[in-house]
Amino acid sequence: MSANRFGSLFQLTSFGESHGVAMGAIVEGCPSGVKFDEELLRSELLRRRPGRLKATSGREEEDQAEILSGVFEGKTLGTPIAILIRNQDARPQDYEEMKTEPRTGHADDVWKDKFSNVDHRGGGRSSGRETVSRVIGGAVAQMFLRQSVAGISIQSELSQIGPLQGAFQPEHLDPAAEELLVAAKREGRSFGAKVQMRIENVPQGLGQPVFRKLKAELATALMGVGAVIAIEFGEGVEAAKAEGTQFHSEAAGSETDRYGGIRGGISTGDPLQIHVTFKPPASVLDVAKKGRHDPCIAIRAIPVLEAMVWLVLADHLLWMRLDRV
Amino acid sequence: MSANRFGSLFQLTSFGESHGVAMGAIVEGCPSGVKFDEELLRSELLRRRPGRLKATSGREEEDQAEILSGVFEGKTLGTPIAILIRNQDARPQDYEEMKTEPRTGHADDVWKDKFSNVDHRGGGRSSGRETVSRVIGGAVAQMFLRQSVAGISIQSELSQIGPLQGAFQPEHLDPAAEELLVAAKREGRSFGAKVQMRIENVPQGLGQPVFRKLKAELATALMGVGAVIAIEFGEGVEAAKAEGTQFHSEAAGSETDRYGGIRGGISTGDPLQIHVTFKPPASVLDVAKKGRHDPCIAIRAIPVLEAMVWLVLADHLLWMRLDRV
Amino acid sequence: MSANRFGSLFQLTSFGESHGVAMGAIVEGCPSGVKFDEELLRSELLRRRPGRLKATSGREEEDQAEILSGVFEGKTLGTPIAILIRNQDARPQDYEEMKTEPRTGHADDVWKDKFSNVDHRGGGRSSGRETVSRVIGGAVAQMFLRQSVAGISIQSELSQIGPLQGAFQPEHLDPAAEELLVAAKREGRSFGAKVQMRIENVPQGLGQPVFRKLKAELATALMGVGAVIAIEFGEGVEAAKAEGTQFHSEAAGSETDRYGGIRGGISTGDPLQIHVTFKPPASVLDVAKKGRHDPCIAIRAIPVLEAMVWLVLADHLLWMRLDRV
Amino acid sequence: MSANRFGSLFQLTSFGESHGVAMGAIVEGCPSGVKFDEELLRSELLRRRPGRLKATSGREEEDQAEILSGVFEGKTLGTPIAILIRNQDARPQDYEEMKTEPRTGHADDVWKDKFSNVDHRGGGRSSGRETVSRVIGGAVAQMFLRQSVAGISIQSELSQIGPLQGAFQPEHLDPAAEELLVAAKREGRSFGAKVQMRIENVPQGLGQPVFRKLKAELATALMGVGAVIAIEFGEGVEAAKAEGTQFHSEAAGSETDRYGGIRGGISTGDPLQIHVTFKPPASVLDVAKKGRHDPCIAIRAIPVLEAMVWLVLADHLLWMRLDRV
Repeated sequence: MSANRFGSLFQLTSFGESHGVAMGAIVEGCPSGVKFDEELLRSELLRRRPGRLKATSGREEEDQAEILSGVFEGKTLGTPIAILIRNQDARPQDYEEMKTEPRTGHADDVWKDKFSNVDHRGGGRSSGRETVSRVIGGAVAQMFLRQSVAGISIQSELSQIGPLQGAFQPEHLDPAAEELLVAAKREGRSFGAKVQMRIENVPQGLGQPVFRKLKAELATALMGVGAVIAIEFGEGVEAAKAEGTQFHSEAAGSETDRYGGIRGGISTGDPLQIHVTFKPPASVLDVAKKGRHDPCIAIRAIPVLEAMVWLVLADHLLWMRLDRV
Repeated sequence: MSANRFGSLFQLTSFGESHGVAMGAIVEGCPSGVKFDEELLRSELLRRRPGRLKATSGREEEDQAEILSGVFEGKTLGTPIAILIRNQDARPQDYEEMKTEPRTGHADDVWKDKFSNVDHRGGGRSSGRETVSRVIGGAVAQMFLRQSVAGISIQSELSQIGPLQGAFQPEHLDPAAEELLVAAKREGRSFGAKVQMRIENVPQGLGQPVFRKLKAELATALMGVGAVIAIEFGEGVEAAKAEGTQFHSEAAGSETDRYGGIRGGISTGDPLQIHVTFKPPASVLDVAKKGRHDPCIAIRAIPVLEAMVWLVLADHLLWMRLDRV
Repeated sequence: MSANRFGSLFQLTSFGESHGVAMGAIVEGCPSGVKFDEELLRSELLRRRPGRLKATSGREEEDQAEILSGVFEGKTLGTPIAILIRNQDARPQDYEEMKTEPRTGHADDVWKDKFSNVDHRGGGRSSGRETVSRVIGGAVAQMFLRQSVAGISIQSELSQIGPLQGAFQPEHLDPAAEELLVAAKREGRSFGAKVQMRIENVPQGLGQPVFRKLKAELATALMGVGAVIAIEFGEGVEAAKAEGTQFHSEAAGSETDRYGGIRGGISTGDPLQIHVTFKPPASVLDVAKKGRHDPCIAIRAIPVLEAMVWLVLADHLLWMRLDRV
Repeated sequence: MSANRFGSLFQLTSFGESHGVAMGAIVEGCPSGVKFDEELLRSELLRRRPGRLKATSGREEEDQAEILSGVFEGKTLGTPIAILIRNQDARPQDYEEMKTEPRTGHADDVWKDKFSNVDHRGGGRSSGRETVSRVIGGAVAQMFLRQSVAGISIQSELSQIGPLQGAFQPEHLDPAAEELLVAAKREGRSFGAKVQMRIENVPQGLGQPVFRKLKAELATALMGVGAVIAIEFGEGVEAAKAEGTQFHSEAAGSETDRYGGIRGGISTGDPLQIHVTFKPPASVLDVAKKGRHDPCIAIRAIPVLEAMVWLVLADHLLWMRLDRV
């Protein structure tokens, strides 16, 4: 029972304050014998790194991961995998004033009331920096899944960035989107966004009936990412207007398009489709001159969303081992 | 670790097959000394009962709850509260053909592949009948909350029923909506819908940082209800188009309207606002003549959604006891 | 997180007050497809039934188990298995005086201080009657294990009954032991005892390193039975006096005799050997004329001990499925 | 669900391989606002450190603890407390031969069969070195308890060391005991031992009925320490011979002496008394010349036993917050 742990069988424990000594991840439940792909870990960390794209935050962190345990001779041991990233570019002094003045749209005030003793520096654990631990966990989950399920993959793109609608690749924003965000960064403005995720080659049978439906597990995984405000599968909110004989007819599209690739809470073997809506980040507003923040958090959040999906899939791949005698 | 249990500290375990002997609920973690309100339990069960409204399924179940344990002299003991409802109007023979022919849009086929031995009668545990256990659990959670938090309440209404938009009261549908659904039932058609929930007098500080954010817990609770396909807080999917300086300005509305009453994953003390989208039920299609199904499942699902919210709130009211030394 | 649930993957939830409506068990995590052996369940319940042996309590309970869910066409479904036993011979009036006067050696007073609202009748959930739920859970675990592991079995005998040392079969006490206990029952006296358990054909590899060692799991399982006051593996307390080169030499006996069949927390494939010490029951003392109690609780507790061992073994047989990629 | 985590509400996660990069501990569930006593942490680590006493192992580790997270301005934050100790005196080459030849009495062979990929160096996670994580966790638990419960304390002494019986202080062994062990170390011999623990000023009401009895929680905590082979409360194995009217009479001693200070699974407010039997360590035998091992592991294990007890008590002090409405 922990607010900092995710998963039932394949578990990530996240620790570290944004401007403390280090961020870290403990991965438990990863079976022994998984080939540990350090290059994959490095590239996933690079994807979420701030300061990489013109359109994102200026904080510079090398995010050098140190593997402390759980891996031996290139393979997992079945013991806890502990991975550490030291905070290097922390500038707690930038946040000194927050100690007394909570930031608009942030949670500084509610945390303070709740816990009394709070690390006010950059949000402590409520900072986006915490997500580095999720990317670590997701990378290990991805290693396990890639070794277990041929061709499994996640593709994510932005279908909406504030006023712009389209199919934007987070790594190569088109010029209009880039211009919008660079200007927003300069002017202290920010935008909401919608991310569309598509997961291919998902095995049939993932998810458990009743309270561990795959859709429910994905919903908590993704809604647990900061600034996420809506989760939809398949047709999503449009389904409210639908009539059933049409909605359920194959003419209306694939199971992926309509149901998101999940029926009865269980993956059907079709690709999964999920839409994740982000509200505009509040960070830009009040500390824009000093803090290092993103005008559209969704871009940098995509590797985090994917990490959460990998974690859910790894967990349920293990659950499946328990289904039958 | 169970797919049939919900909650961390305040826990519901649900059991029973739709056309088996009985449905049941075990509530654990309810503190001792809660006044047990049998009348509240009865009225909540009545709200979800099939056959009550013209616009809903024809299955007749008295849903007589028997309290087996955990209550003594009108109060909870702090021991497991076991409550049983026997299945009376089960007609398993109606479903005999499903044994070989899975129903469109249902999960009969994926369950069969997953578990091999499956109770095909009316969906077994994937039936909407399972939700009676949730209503029981939610009623006990509600008793605990009402005794602990003055004025806490949930109001739910339908903001969309297929083609109709409005603010429909589930207990007293307006004539247009009722007509639409009665016709749909007769013709074997069905509709999606959107439910808007508003929770008043929620204490500040509910929810835990990182993976147990209140929004994430509510998301899994509600997405775990059959046919739910999208969850939104506050502005929901519209936030994707928003610009931050406007979105976060108080002129744009209350914290409830914009954020759903949650910041940093923690309740702010403002009312919560959640939107839940249902896809059109598939049941109506293929077994309309025999089975007893609803043309718009959202109506009857409202007490189930509320039960899930009560469970989340009760759980997090207990978590709060652990926050400080 | 529940005080009434046992196990991680294969879980028993126990409910019911001794003089309430019913006792019950929910078994979760039992894979689908296990042949459900009702005869085995009946015979295990019969073994722990009071009133069967001259040397045990006079309470008469038929202990008729009703299977409410989780079994279909003779096999488990992978859904929660709920089993109910109604209390028939409850005589709460016998215990009326306990409401004010707690019994010596019992926990009535500490429970009352802890929970405030307590079912004082016959100890409520602290009654030995609660163990009927464990026997149900253990029987289902046993079904799973017998179907999965050839020849697995548990034998238990009493190596000490108060002043008597020997190898007493609980089902057929020898005349000296029977005489001792019948006299004790008449005279309001009681005795401690030691039970020796031997589990044959245990698969190698059960148990998990560090905090889920097989010995630690068995220790909590058995120490959780009322009146148990000591647990020993293999040589047990005698090992404190031992010298290592002798103790670890094969000449000193089998791995079973010395280590109890467990090394590094993991079963070696040798038989397990456990010794369980019971203190003399306190029940006999103060309510002997009215209550229905045992002069040597160990005899009737043996099926309960065995049930707990079956539960641990079933749990760890499932854990093993998660060890390797 | 993890084999490397201990506790329900107050949780320790242990990680690290004996001859890997580092050992570590994550403490979750410690409420915010606990004064963090670094000096206490240091002194507890010093107590278990090898190489400190003549009678124990020669491995030299400074055991310098680095606090990575969860503590801010001298107090806990309510977030995960991560503490790291780097391995400095690891000599993996000493253990090279173990790769092929498992050591007598150790678990190298069963682990290898179970996990396939195993860190053979010094036992990996089955090494006694792992217990440094427990001492860290126990120290944090102790800080929480000392701040919450006046006068709570644990005293441990050895009541048996192989052939010697007495009341030996682990920090100041008497000359006879020291001589026995120094000779044993030189000659490659080893001894079993029994430790008696007494916990004073324990609040009444710790422990939960049925499966979380305080005795059951302490049993799993202590039996989970390597080489422990028996656990007794109060009278322990002697209770098997006892007659009830005498055993339960106050003339027979305090509740501590007879029951170990626990009734009905719940602490009575009297001191707790527990006896822990260790088998002789096997390490001395086969690698005595190279490895650095203890002739009587109980001495160095005492701070580990105490750490486990602190963890159990902290966990149950939190549970008590949930007992009543």
